[in-house]
Amino acid sequence: MMMDASNHPFDDDKLHEECGVFGIFSHADAAAHVALGLHALQHRGQEAAGIVSHDSTHFFSHRALGLVGDNFNSAEIINKLRGHIAIGHNRYSTTGDTLLRNVQPLYGDFSFGGLAVAHNGNLTNAMRLRKQLIDIGCLFQSTSDTEVIIHLIALSKQASVEDRLIDALSRIEGAYSLVVLAQDRMIGVRDPHGVRPLVMGKLNDSIIFASETCALDIVGAQYVRDLDPGEIVIVDPTGIRSLKPFTPTKKRFCIFEYVYFSRPDSLSEGANVYEVRQRIGAQLSREAPVDADVVVPVPDSGIPGALGYAKASGIPFELGIIRNHYVGRTFIEPSDHVRHLGVKLKHNGNRAMLEGKRVILVDDSIVRGTTSKKIVNMVRDAGAKEIHMRIASPPTTNPCFYGVDTPTKEHLLAARYDIAQMAKLIGVDSLAFITLNGMYQAVAQINRDNASPQYCDACFSGDYPIPLTDAGNIANEHLKDSRSIVQDV
Amino acid sequence: MMMDASNHPFDDDKLHEECGVFGIFSHADAAAHVALGLHALQHRGQEAAGIVSHDSTHFFSHRALGLVGDNFNSAEIINKLRGHIAIGHNRYSTTGDTLLRNVQPLYGDFSFGGLAVAHNGNLTNAMRLRKQLIDIGCLFQSTSDTEVIIHLIALSKQASVEDRLIDALSRIEGAYSLVVLAQDRMIGVRDPHGVRPLVMGKLNDSIIFASETCALDIVGAQYVRDLDPGEIVIVDPTGIRSLKPFTPTKKRFCIFEYVYFSRPDSLSEGANVYEVRQRIGAQLSREAPVDADVVVPVPDSGIPGALGYAKASGIPFELGIIRNHYVGRTFIEPSDHVRHLGVKLKHNGNRAMLEGKRVILVDDSIVRGTTSKKIVNMVRDAGAKEIHMRIASPPTTNPCFYGVDTPTKEHLLAARYDIAQMAKLIGVDSLAFITLNGMYQAVAQINRDNASPQYCDACFSGDYPIPLTDAGNIANEHLKDSRSIVQDV
Amino acid sequence: MMMDASNHPFDDDKLHEECGVFGIFSHADAAAHVALGLHALQHRGQEAAGIVSHDSTHFFSHRALGLVGDNFNSAEIINKLRGHIAIGHNRYSTTGDTLLRNVQPLYGDFSFGGLAVAHNGNLTNAMRLRKQLIDIGCLFQSTSDTEVIIHLIALSKQASVEDRLIDALSRIEGAYSLVVLAQDRMIGVRDPHGVRPLVMGKLNDSIIFASETCALDIVGAQYVRDLDPGEIVIVDPTGIRSLKPFTPTKKRFCIFEYVYFSRPDSLSEGANVYEVRQRIGAQLSREAPVDADVVVPVPDSGIPGALGYAKASGIPFELGIIRNHYVGRTFIEPSDHVRHLGVKLKHNGNRAMLEGKRVILVDDSIVRGTTSKKIVNMVRDAGAKEIHMRIASPPTTNPCFYGVDTPTKEHLLAARYDIAQMAKLIGVDSLAFITLNGMYQAVAQINRDNASPQYCDACFSGDYPIPLTDAGNIANEHLKDSRSIVQDV
Amino acid sequence: MMMDASNHPFDDDKLHEECGVFGIFSHADAAAHVALGLHALQHRGQEAAGIVSHDSTHFFSHRALGLVGDNFNSAEIINKLRGHIAIGHNRYSTTGDTLLRNVQPLYGDFSFGGLAVAHNGNLTNAMRLRKQLIDIGCLFQSTSDTEVIIHLIALSKQASVEDRLIDALSRIEGAYSLVVLAQDRMIGVRDPHGVRPLVMGKLNDSIIFASETCALDIVGAQYVRDLDPGEIVIVDPTGIRSLKPFTPTKKRFCIFEYVYFSRPDSLSEGANVYEVRQRIGAQLSREAPVDADVVVPVPDSGIPGALGYAKASGIPFELGIIRNHYVGRTFIEPSDHVRHLGVKLKHNGNRAMLEGKRVILVDDSIVRGTTSKKIVNMVRDAGAKEIHMRIASPPTTNPCFYGVDTPTKEHLLAARYDIAQMAKLIGVDSLAFITLNGMYQAVAQINRDNASPQYCDACFSGDYPIPLTDAGNIANEHLKDSRSIVQDV
Repeated sequence: MMMDASNHPFDDDKLHEECGVFGIFSHADAAAHVALGLHALQHRGQEAAGIVSHDSTHFFSHRALGLVGDNFNSAEIINKLRGHIAIGHNRYSTTGDTLLRNVQPLYGDFSFGGLAVAHNGNLTNAMRLRKQLIDIGCLFQSTSDTEVIIHLIALSKQASVEDRLIDALSRIEGAYSLVVLAQDRMIGVRDPHGVRPLVMGKLNDSIIFASETCALDIVGAQYVRDLDPGEIVIVDPTGIRSLKPFTPTKKRFCIFEYVYFSRPDSLSEGANVYEVRQRIGAQLSREAPVDADVVVPVPDSGIPGALGYAKASGIPFELGIIRNHYVGRTFIEPSDHVRHLGVKLKHNGNRAMLEGKRVILVDDSIVRGTTSKKIVNMVRDAGAKEIHMRIASPPTTNPCFYGVDTPTKEHLLAARYDIAQMAKLIGVDSLAFITLNGMYQAVAQINRDNASPQYCDACFSGDYPIPLTDAGNIANEHLKDSRSIVQDV
Repeated sequence: MMMDASNHPFDDDKLHEECGVFGIFSHADAAAHVALGLHALQHRGQEAAGIVSHDSTHFFSHRALGLVGDNFNSAEIINKLRGHIAIGHNRYSTTGDTLLRNVQPLYGDFSFGGLAVAHNGNLTNAMRLRKQLIDIGCLFQSTSDTEVIIHLIALSKQASVEDRLIDALSRIEGAYSLVVLAQDRMIGVRDPHGVRPLVMGKLNDSIIFASETCALDIVGAQYVRDLDPGEIVIVDPTGIRSLKPFTPTKKRFCIFEYVYFSRPDSLSEGANVYEVRQRIGAQLSREAPVDADVVVPVPDSGIPGALGYAKASGIPFELGIIRNHYVGRTFIEPSDHVRHLGVKLKHNGNRAMLEGKRVILVDDSIVRGTTSKKIVNMVRDAGAKEIHMRIASPPTTNPCFYGVDTPTKEHLLAARYDIAQMAKLIGVDSLAFITLNGMYQAVAQINRDNASPQYCDACFSGDYPIPLTDAGNIANEHLKDSRSIVQDV
Repeated sequence: MMMDASNHPFDDDKLHEECGVFGIFSHADAAAHVALGLHALQHRGQEAAGIVSHDSTHFFSHRALGLVGDNFNSAEIINKLRGHIAIGHNRYSTTGDTLLRNVQPLYGDFSFGGLAVAHNGNLTNAMRLRKQLIDIGCLFQSTSDTEVIIHLIALSKQASVEDRLIDALSRIEGAYSLVVLAQDRMIGVRDPHGVRPLVMGKLNDSIIFASETCALDIVGAQYVRDLDPGEIVIVDPTGIRSLKPFTPTKKRFCIFEYVYFSRPDSLSEGANVYEVRQRIGAQLSREAPVDADVVVPVPDSGIPGALGYAKASGIPFELGIIRNHYVGRTFIEPSDHVRHLGVKLKHNGNRAMLEGKRVILVDDSIVRGTTSKKIVNMVRDAGAKEIHMRIASPPTTNPCFYGVDTPTKEHLLAARYDIAQMAKLIGVDSLAFITLNGMYQAVAQINRDNASPQYCDACFSGDYPIPLTDAGNIANEHLKDSRSIVQDV
Repeated sequence: MMMDASNHPFDDDKLHEECGVFGIFSHADAAAHVALGLHALQHRGQEAAGIVSHDSTHFFSHRALGLVGDNFNSAEIINKLRGHIAIGHNRYSTTGDTLLRNVQPLYGDFSFGGLAVAHNGNLTNAMRLRKQLIDIGCLFQSTSDTEVIIHLIALSKQASVEDRLIDALSRIEGAYSLVVLAQDRMIGVRDPHGVRPLVMGKLNDSIIFASETCALDIVGAQYVRDLDPGEIVIVDPTGIRSLKPFTPTKKRFCIFEYVYFSRPDSLSEGANVYEVRQRIGAQLSREAPVDADVVVPVPDSGIPGALGYAKASGIPFELGIIRNHYVGRTFIEPSDHVRHLGVKLKHNGNRAMLEGKRVILVDDSIVRGTTSKKIVNMVRDAGAKEIHMRIASPPTTNPCFYGVDTPTKEHLLAARYDIAQMAKLIGVDSLAFITLNGMYQAVAQINRDNASPQYCDACFSGDYPIPLTDAGNIANEHLKDSRSIVQDV
C-alpha cells in the first residue's frame, strides 16, 4: 500500500482548483517570466505544466507532466521558448489517467496561423459540442474540453482571430478564464459570470494576465485590475482593446476562492485573501463560541481562520499540529499497525500544546471527512481533553461543475449527514460551520441576496448559475466514453 | 563531437526505408505477435515504434521513441494492449526533430468509432491536401502525411468504414502500404502501383499483414501472397474480402527493396532477396571483371553481392573488414588525430586478408560517398595493393519521393560526378556499377522495358511513376513550413 | 543561472544539521518503520538516505541519493530489506560532490561477521586517524569520517563486537551519536559530551533509537529516555544492557538544536522545542522591546519565536510573509530584472499585512546574512514603514566542528561586523539578538555557567568543549586532500 | 517470460570472456583513447565499463553498468577524466547480481598515493587470501578478486610501488593480465603462464597496453609485441622497463581465444584469429568430411570456420541463417505457441538456401547445447533435408577457472554424453568435432605435446596448469558466502 505524503500542502481530502494561467506580452524574457508566474500559481494545479511562446514567426512549445520547477528549470529549455509573447498553464487532473496530450496550452495550426489556449475552468456543454464536432468530421486528439474551443475557432467562418474567438465563445457554456496566444497578440477572456479569476498586471511596458495577483508579485509586476465578467481584452502591438460582445450577466465570482483555492497573499476581486480568512475565523468565533484553552489550526490552510478565531475570542493560538515539509511517497507495509500511521507522514501532534487541553481545532472545509477524522484522532492521541472543531466555510453539500475537482454528491459528508452526525463520525466534542450569510459578511461585508446571489456558492447552496448541459444530458455516459476511446498504456 | 557507432547495420550514408508495418487479426496474443513482427522488421525503421490493439470495445495504444525491443519488452505493457486484433509500425524519421505525436499507428475517434492507421510509404500530394484541410477547419496534431488520410476518412460522407477509406484513398497520391484497424476488422491496402511491399500470411486461423515475409517467419506464420497493386483486403469476423475499386495501373514495385531495404531472408514479390543479391553480384562480375586476389564485402549488406561476385569470378571471398557488433555512441575528442578514427567505431580492416592484396571491394550502393571514402582509406591503410570497387546497384542519381529517406539531388555523388571522377574522389583504382538493364536481369531475369518499366527505378533512372504534386508545387516551401509551425522544445 | 527554490523549508543561508539516525530492534516490519522514522527526520539531512537490515543470517542494504520518500517508496525495495532489525540514516552533505559511496549506513564484512554504522556528528581527529590507518595498509572506499570507525573495529584485537566497538571509540574524538547493527544486535552510542541527540523509544516489544522524538511519534512509539553522554546501549535477544566504559565528562548538549535543528514537536533532553522557542521569543521581547504594529515571522522557523514575542509584547502576530510550498528549481534568465526575483521563489510579502506598518520581523538566526537582506528588501517593497529585526539566538560568530555544516568564520556575518553595522547591511531600522545568558534562561531556565557551560554553545561563544585535532593540525590540508584523491566524475 | 535478443552477437549458450583491459601512457587525449579501445574490446565484457585517469596530481574515475558506448559518450565525462595517463576495463559478470562497486578499475588510496588496477583473468586462491586478509582487519568493499591484489599492495612493507606490486603478485595464483595506474606510471603485468592475452602498442610517443590488437587498430596504434608470461612492464617518464621477477614457467596461452573469444581481426600471440579459424574449418573438413550441398555457418562466430570448411571441401558456402542486428529484449507471452519462438528473435532460416538441401552446419563450439538444438530445429523447419553439424573446437568437457564464465561440469553437454548421444539430442544427422591434436595443428601448425602442452586447453582436456586452490578448499562455500554477506537491494 502506498501512502502519499504529497508535496503540496493541500490534502487529498480537499477540493482542488483545476488550473492556473499566466501570459505576458512584449517582454524580452517572456518564457522565463511565465515559468515564474506558473511557479507562484503552482497551488492551482500540480499535475502538469506547459508554456507556448511566439516570436512573430514561429511558435514554440514545451509541455510536461509534473511541477513547473521540475520541468522549466534549465536555461536550455527556456532559451528555446523564444519570442516576446508567452502563455502558460498549470493543470490539475480530474481523471486517474494523466495524458501528455491533455497538457495545456493546447495549440492548433489554423488557416490564419497558429493559436494556443490556456484555460482555467470547465465547459458545461463540452461533451455535447464534442459529439456534434466529431459527427461532422473533427478529429480530437485530447480528452480536454479546451480542445472544443480550438475546433470551434478552426471551423468559424469569420475572418479575424478575434471574430473567430467570439464566434467560438458564443457556442460554449461554462466557467472559463482563458489566455490565448495568436499571431503577435495575447488575448484574455473571462466568462460572462466571471466565475473563475483573471487579473491584469503591468511590468513596465509588458502586459500580464494571471489567475492570481501572487503571480504578478513574483515577477515584480503591478496589479492593474480584475477583468470584468464577459470581457475580452486584446493586447497587440497597437495597444490594448477591451470587448464585451455578449449580453451582460450578473457577476458570480467563486466564493470558494476565498475559502481555500487562492493563495493568502493574493487579492481576489480586490480583497486580500488572508484578511478575508481572518474575518471568517472571527465571524465563526462569534457564531460558534466555545470555552477552551487553545486555538489550533490544521496547517497550513487553517492558520488564518484560526488566528482570526483566536484574536476575536481571546483564546491563545498555538501550533498544536506540526507539518512535515518533505515530499514524496513513503512505503507502508500492510500490517495493521502501520496502516494507521498514514496521516503522520504529513502531520504530527505537538503534545506539549495539546495534552490535557480543551482544543478548538480550525480547518477551512470538510469534504469527505476522512482526513478530519484522522487528524482528530491524532490530536486526541496527543492528549487533548476536548476537541471542538470549527470550519471556516459552510457545509459543502454539492459538487462543482465549474472547474473544481469535487467528489460526487454521495461522497460529500455534509450531503449525507447533519452536523450532529458529522461530529460523531469525526469524533469531536462539538462541530460548527460558519453560516452562508456569515460567510458573505466576512467576505464582502454584505448579506447574501438570496434572490440573486452575488457569488457562485453552488457548492454550499446548490444554486448553479450556469446550465449543466452535459450533466443533464441522457447521452452523458456515452459522451464520456467517447472521450477516452483510445487508452494509452 | 559525437560520432555514432550506430547499432543498426545500415550506415548513415545509405538510403533508409521509412517504415515497416505489421497487423494480426484474431489471435489471443495479438499484441505480442505484433511486437515480434515489428522486431523482425526493425531494419525498416529504428526511430520509434507503436502498437494499437482492439478488444471489440476499446482501443489500446502504446507508442514510444526507440527500438521495439526497448519499448515492448515488458509483460505489463503487452498485457495492457488487450484484444484479438493489433497493428503496429516501425518508423524511420526523415527529419531532425523526432516527435512522439508523429509515431504511428495514428489513431482517430470518428463518429463511427475508433480507427488506427499504420503507413509505409509517402504521399506526394499530402502538403496540398493538408493546406486544403486546414482551410476548411481541420486541426492537425502531427506533421505526418498519414494524418491527412485520417482527416479524409473523418470528413467522408460515406457510411461504412470501407467506403470512407476508399473515398479517402481516391484523393491521395503516392506510394503507400497501409494496415488499418477499425471496429472488429483489419484492412490491408497497397497503392495502385504497388510501390511499397505488403504481404499476407496465415497463422492457423489468424490473418497477418506485414511489410516482409521475415516478419511472418518470426511468428511461425505461412506466407500466403503479396497484395496486388491497388488492392484493399478486409479481414473481419465474416471472412476475407478483396476490393479493387481503382482503375488498374501497371505495377511498379520498388527495385531498391532488392538492393538494400529488404532483409536477405525475405521473399519480395516472390523472389528471395539473398538470391537476387547474389545474382546481382554475379552479373556485376560479368559486366565489370577485374584481375584480383580477393573479393571483400563491405559488411553486412555487401556480403551476398560479394559472394555472388566471388563465385562467378572464381576469386576467393574473404571477410577483409570486420564489424564491431556493439552499439551506442562513443565520444571522440576534437583533436585532429582522433577525429579521423570515426569509421573504426564500426569497422576494422582485417590486415591479414588485405595486406599486399589486389582487393575487389563490393558494396550495395553509393549515396553521398562519404563512407565509401573512409572505408577505402581503411582498407588502404591495412595494406591493400589495389582496390577495385564494385557496386551492386546502378548509380543513385535521383531522390526518392515514395517513402525512402534520400538526400537531395545535389548530395547524391552520382548526380554530380561521372564514374572516373567518383573513383578518384573515393580513392579506388577502379570503380564500376551494375547497369540498370543488368540489374533487371538479375532481379527478374527480364530486360527493362524502357517504354514502360516493370519496376519503380526512379532513384536510378529519374523516371517517376507517380506525380510529384507537392514537389512541383510553388507553394511547397510554405506548405512545408506550415507542417512545423509549432516546435516542441 | 539556476536558483534553488529548495524543497526543504530551511534556507541555504542557515546552519544545517548533517544527519539523522534511526534503528529498530525486533519488529516484523523493521525496514518500513525505519523508512517512516527517517521520513520524520528528513529535516536533519536531505542529500541521501540508506537503510541496512538483518535477518540473523544476511544483511541487506539500500542506499540512494535524494529524499527518503523518493527512494524508499516501493513495496519491492522495502520487502527486500528483510529481517527484524534495521537501521537507517539521512545525510546532509558538507561538500559539493555527493558520492553514493559516502551514503550511510556504512557496512563492513569483518572476521566476526557483518556490521553497519549510522553516524550523526563529526569526528575531530578523523583525518589524523585516517592517515595513520592508510599508513598501515587500510584501504578507504569513502571520504566519510564514519569509515574510520569501521576500520578501527576491524583492526581491534578484542574478541566481541562490543569490545571492538569500545576499543574503536576509545581512539576517536568528536561529537557522535551512533546506531550500530551487528549479528542479532543493535547498539546505540552517544559521545562522552552528549553533543548530538539520541533518544530511546519503545513500540510494544521493539526498541528504537532515533535522533529525535518526532521519529518515535510517526511510528506510534513511546519515548523512553535520552541516552546519557558516553553511554553505550546494547539491545540483543537477551535484553538491553547499558555500558559506560569511558571517564565521565560534563554533558554539553548542542544548544542550537533548540534554535533551529530539531523539529518543534520534538522533545530535546526533555524539553519541547516549540515551547523553548516561544520562551526565546518572549525573552527577546523583554530584552529588545520596540514599539510596533505587527510581529511577522520569517516562515517557518521563525514562527514559534514570533508567537512568543507577540504574546509577551501584546503586539499582534500576523503572517506578513507567505511561503510557496512547491519545490524544485526554477530557471531565471540572466537579465538584471529577473536576477533579483530569486527570493520570491519561496516567499512573498503579504502586502495587506505590511503596507504602512511598523514591523517586528522575527527570524531564528543570521548566518551569512544574504537571505535576511533579501527578505528585508521584500518586506520593504511590500510597504513596511519600519522594520525591526529580532533574532531568536545570539550572534553566530564561530563555525561548528561537531557535525553541523557552517561557513568558515570569515563568512559569518556576526564574526565580521557589530550589530549596528549588521543592521545597516541588512537594511533594518533596528536589529537585536537574544543574549547568550537570556538564551540559557529560555532554554533551561538557568544562567550560563561561564566556567563550565551546561551546553555546547561554541557557535556563539567560541568555547569548544572537544579538541579540534584535525583543525589544528598543520598537515590538515594534506589530510583533507587525501580524502578525495580519486574523483568520481 | 522475457527472452533476450541480446545485442551482443554471442549467444547465452557460449563461453564468455570475463574482461578486456586497455591503458595508454602519455597522450593528451588519454581518456578518449581508452574509451575507443574499450569499445573495440566490447566483445570481451558487456556488463560494465570503467576508466581511471591521472594528471600527475589527482586521479579521476568513472565507472558504470552497461556498454562503453552508452556510458562514455559525452564530452562532459571524457573531459573530466583529465590527465595524460588512463586505464580502462570492460567487465563480464559471472554472477546474477551486478554491483557498481565491483566495476573496475578498482582504486585504492595508499600511503604512497593512489593506484588503480584493471584485471582480466581470475585468481584461483582469491577466496583463501580474502579470508586471511579479513582476519587481520582488512575491509572489503567489493566481491571482486581484484580487490585482494589491492589489499596485498596496501599491506606490503616494500617501499616502491613496483616492489609492493611484486610482493602482492608473489602471493596470488591464477590467470591474470593486469594494467595498473599509479603516480605518473602505467604498469602491464601478465601471469607466469601467460594464460590471458596482453599486447603492447605504440602511438607516436604513447605506449598502450591492450587485451587484443583490434584495440590498437581503432586508435591507429602500431602493434609492438605480446608481453611475455610473467613479465612486468613499467612505463614512466624515464622510459620503459621490463621485469621478470618470478621463476620462469612454461607458457600456456588460452587456446580458446582462437576458438571464440578474440575478435577475428586480432593477432593473438602473433597469429591472425580469422586465419586460424579458417584453418580450423579446413582441418575439420579433412577430419570429418560429408557429402552435402551447402556449408552454412551459425552466424557470426561460425563464419570463418565455415568458409575454411567450404574452401577445403569445395562445397558452396551460403548464409543459410540470417541474423537480426537489432538489440534489446522482446516480450513473449507465455502461450505455448509463442514460447518456442525465442531463437527467432536473433536468427531466421533463409529458406531459399536450405529447402531440400543437405546442409553442413558449422559452429565454433557446443557448451550446454540448448541453442544448438533450437538452431538445428529452425534449419530443419526451413526445409533442410539433412543436417551435418561440424564444430570448430574439441568437445568442451571441463569448466574454466582462469577468467572465463563456464557452466559447471554437469551442465556441459560434452561432459555428459558421447558424440552419438549428442547428435541425437541436438537432432542432427551427423555431428563431428575437430580433434584436440587437429586443433593444435590448425592453430600453431604443431602437434600437441601431451607431456607438457603448449597451450592451456583445460576446457577440452581437463589438464589445469595452475593450482585450483579455492576450488579444492573445503571451506569454499563458506568463503563464497563471505563474499556476498551484504546484499544491495
